[in-house]
Amino acid sequence: MTIDHALDRERAVTEEVVASFAGTADSRLREVMQALVRHLHAFARDVRLTQREWEAGMAFLTRAGHITDDRRQEFILLSDVLGLSMLTVAINEPTAPGATEATVFGPFFVDDAPEVELGGDIARGAVGTPCFVHGTVRSTEGDPLVGARLDVWEADDDGFYDVQYSAEASAGRGWLRSGADGAYRFWSVLPAPYPIPHDGPVGALLEAAGRGPMRPAHLHFKVTAPGYRTLITHLFVAGDPHLADDAVFGVKDSLVVHVDEHDGGVAPDGSEREGRWTEIAFDLVLPPEAPDIRPTSEEHR
Amino acid sequence: MTIDHALDRERAVTEEVVASFAGTADSRLREVMQALVRHLHAFARDVRLTQREWEAGMAFLTRAGHITDDRRQEFILLSDVLGLSMLTVAINEPTAPGATEATVFGPFFVDDAPEVELGGDIARGAVGTPCFVHGTVRSTEGDPLVGARLDVWEADDDGFYDVQYSAEASAGRGWLRSGADGAYRFWSVLPAPYPIPHDGPVGALLEAAGRGPMRPAHLHFKVTAPGYRTLITHLFVAGDPHLADDAVFGVKDSLVVHVDEHDGGVAPDGSEREGRWTEIAFDLVLPPEAPDIRPTSEEHR
Repeated sequence: MTIDHALDRERAVTEEVVASFAGTADSRLREVMQALVRHLHAFARDVRLTQREWEAGMAFLTRAGHITDDRRQEFILLSDVLGLSMLTVAINEPTAPGATEATVFGPFFVDDAPEVELGGDIARGAVGTPCFVHGTVRSTEGDPLVGARLDVWEADDDGFYDVQYSAEASAGRGWLRSGADGAYRFWSVLPAPYPIPHDGPVGALLEAAGRGPMRPAHLHFKVTAPGYRTLITHLFVAGDPHLADDAVFGVKDSLVVHVDEHDGGVAPDGSEREGRWTEIAFDLVLPPEAPDIRPTSEEHR
Repeated sequence: MTIDHALDRERAVTEEVVASFAGTADSRLREVMQALVRHLHAFARDVRLTQREWEAGMAFLTRAGHITDDRRQEFILLSDVLGLSMLTVAINEPTAPGATEATVFGPFFVDDAPEVELGGDIARGAVGTPCFVHGTVRSTEGDPLVGARLDVWEADDDGFYDVQYSAEASAGRGWLRSGADGAYRFWSVLPAPYPIPHDGPVGALLEAAGRGPMRPAHLHFKVTAPGYRTLITHLFVAGDPHLADDAVFGVKDSLVVHVDEHDGGVAPDGSEREGRWTEIAFDLVLPPEAPDIRPTSEEHR
C-alpha cells in the first residue's frame, strides 16, 4: 500500500464518521459533533497516535472518572489545565466596554451555599486574616443594580476550600444581595495561593509537563441580576507570587486588586477592629444581557 | 472590543497553554500535548462553544466516568462511536501486502480468559449454534507460525458477552496456541449481531444523533507471535444486516467471511455431529514486526 493510499484510508474513516452524524435532528448538536470528530481525528493523524498512546488516553480518562465525585471534579480540572475553560470564557465573554472581565468557574462552586446578610461574614470558621470586601454592583451604563445576587467562595489561609475538608462543612462561601444603592459588602478571610488538587491524573500530567499546580490567591464571584449577563470571575491579590504561572491560565490584569492592610481601628462598616485585618474595594460591572445570536440547543448530553 | 481583538485574545489563550507544555521532559509527550491543545482549542473556536455546551461536555464525561468499571468501559465506547478507535487502527496498521487487516479492539477483552486446548470449545456455556472455526496462522512470507497465541472472544446468540452477565462467568472466550503446522481450530458458537451497551451517555449520544447502536455479528481475535506484529481483528459473518451501519465503523470487506451451514455429519476435526452446526475457515496472516520509526515514549498516564 502506498502512503497516499494509507492517508486516503485514514481520511475515509473520518468522512464515514462525520456522515454518521448527518441525521442528527438538532442542527447545533450535529454541527458540534461533526466538528469534534474532524478536530479529534486531525489530532490523531497529526501526531500519528500509537495504539499504546490511545490506550494511555483511555486509562487517563478512566482514572479521571473514578476520582470524580460530588466534591472532586477532575474533568473540570483537566479542562482548566488544558486552557479549554479559559478559552470558553474568552469565546463567550461580552465585548461591552467597561464590563468586569470574566475568568474560570473552577470546580469548587456548590449550589447549596448559605445566604448571609449584607455586611455579614462568609468565613464561618474559615481560618485567615479577616478581609472586608466591598464595592458596587452596577451596569455598564452606570446604573446601580439593586438586589443583585453575589455568590462568593474562596480557599482559606491554608489553601483549602471547605469541600476539600469534608462533605458537611460550609466555610468561606455564601451568597448575599446588593443593597438599595447597588452596594455590596461582606467580611471574609484573605485568600491564599494554593495548588489545584494534584493527587490524581491531572496532577500526574502537570508533573510530567514540568508545570506547577499552584493558583494565585483569589476570591470567586458569581454575580447574577435579571436582565444582565451573569458574571463569573475572580479577584486576584496583587503581589501574589503565582500571578504569572496560574495553573489554569485565569489571571487578567484588570482582576488583580490591591489589598489594604490595617491594624485595629474602625472598619468601613463602622465596626471596631482589633489586630490585623485587610480590605478590598472593587466594583462589579455587568453588561445588559444580549440576545444570543448563535444557534442555541437543549442540553444534549 | 473589535472582533479582531477578540480573536487575538482567543489565540493568545491557546499560545499561552501551548507554551506551558514547552518544559515537558519527554519530547513525545510534549508533541502530543501541544497538538492536543491546538486541536481542542480549534474545535472550541470553530463551533463558538458556549458555556452551557462546555458544562454539558463536562457532565457527559462525568457520567461516562461513573458508569465505567472493570466490566464496562464507556470511554472506549465513546472512542469507538467517534471513530477514533478505527482511525488509530488505520494509522498504525502495517502496510504489508497480504496481511490480515486489523479492526477495533473493543471494550470486552479480559486478561484472565481460560486457556483451551487446540480444537477445544471456548463456548463453555455460551448459548448458540455450534461453530467450528479453523485455519492457519502464517506470516506474510508464507511461513506457518507455530505456537502463536490466539485470544478469541465473542457475544453469544443473545448478543451478550460473558462480562455483561456477571463478573464471575467466563463463556465465549478463551485462548489457545496454533499447532505444529501453524494450524488452529476451536469450537464456539455462531456470534449474533448486538447493540453496544447503550444505557449510558454514549447510548444517549447515539440516540440524539439518530444512530443505531448495533454491531454486525463478529468473532474477536488477538493473535500474538514473537517477531510478528500483533493482530487485533474480527471476523464478520457474511449477510449480516448491520455490515453497512456498524456503530463503531469496524467492518472491512476482507474480514467478512462466509459461514458454512451443516446438519449432522462429521466435522473437520472428525467428531460426529447431531443437529445444526456451522463452520468458518479463515487464515490469519501476520507481517514481521517492523521497527517503529516514530519516536516512542513511556506510558505517561
